[in-house]
Amino acid sequence: MEPDPREPRPGEIRIDLPAPTDAAIRFIGRIRTPWRERSHCPKNSREAIARGDQALASVEIDPRFADGLRGVEGFSHLWILYWMDRGARDLIMQAPAHLAEPRGVFALRSPARPNPIAMAAARLIEVKATSLLVLGVDCLDGTPLVDVKPYFASTDAIADAVRP
Amino acid sequence: MEPDPREPRPGEIRIDLPAPTDAAIRFIGRIRTPWRERSHCPKNSREAIARGDQALASVEIDPRFADGLRGVEGFSHLWILYWMDRGARDLIMQAPAHLAEPRGVFALRSPARPNPIAMAAARLIEVKATSLLVLGVDCLDGTPLVDVKPYFASTDAIADAVRP
Repeated sequence: MEPDPREPRPGEIRIDLPAPTDAAIRFIGRIRTPWRERSHCPKNSREAIARGDQALASVEIDPRFADGLRGVEGFSHLWILYWMDRGARDLIMQAPAHLAEPRGVFALRSPARPNPIAMAAARLIEVKATSLLVLGVDCLDGTPLVDVKPYFASTDAIADAVRP
Repeated sequence: MEPDPREPRPGEIRIDLPAPTDAAIRFIGRIRTPWRERSHCPKNSREAIARGDQALASVEIDPRFADGLRGVEGFSHLWILYWMDRGARDLIMQAPAHLAEPRGVFALRSPARPNPIAMAAARLIEVKATSLLVLGVDCLDGTPLVDVKPYFASTDAIADAVRP
């Protein structure tokens, strides 16, 4: 869904795009979280983790895919990939309230992006038959699930990565 | 593209799936790498980094999206998300050669998965007008680009994450 766009803020740039038809996503489940409104969501996975039990989420997998969970119990953390279907996909420069200057979408983790895939490194709390209890996702209740991947510290953990 | 499936190995499970129509991806560019055959690709981003200059890759962005790069130069590392369009999407249990037992797809970083999105934390070497020179992707030359995100050590670097 691409909703009616909001008015761009100063410095924002919106581009014309044809329908996205290069590849297709099949939702593999839904994420159940405590949050029904954006303003209630944690800002990011770190804030979710800081909220502790208040931020537990259930990653519910379509039963057809449930065998795909075999072996995840050995990992302490998983990447949860989800589809942020409420955002504009054409807003290439964005002016988030917390930044002094507009910034390109590829320098932001904004949910509004050309392909609205978000990812969060979540702590795995419990594996059930067709769901995962996790801590560290920040999305609205009912958000479509796109993928689950094991977290590998050897490739994914770059403690000295620098940001502006 | 979902190619003719290979014969499942012992312990592998393939499921029946309808066409994927829940959401659509628009490729935003292509990744140019030195590798034209799978057997030449590094096994993962860590191996790519170990190869040094031999593994430099150019993330080429469709010029329509080029403004989205403004600000990426401040980050040392970026997540590169790409579409692994050569793999089967229905192989839920897989038996990779390096594992003693078959494992669920969500416990593997295999490119064969229900939604074949791969991600690599790559070191940003240089920002050009419509491309990024990076080190740390492991994909074939010409792989479709899905997203670029800044790497945030505060949420993404979990040095003590455990794997089996």
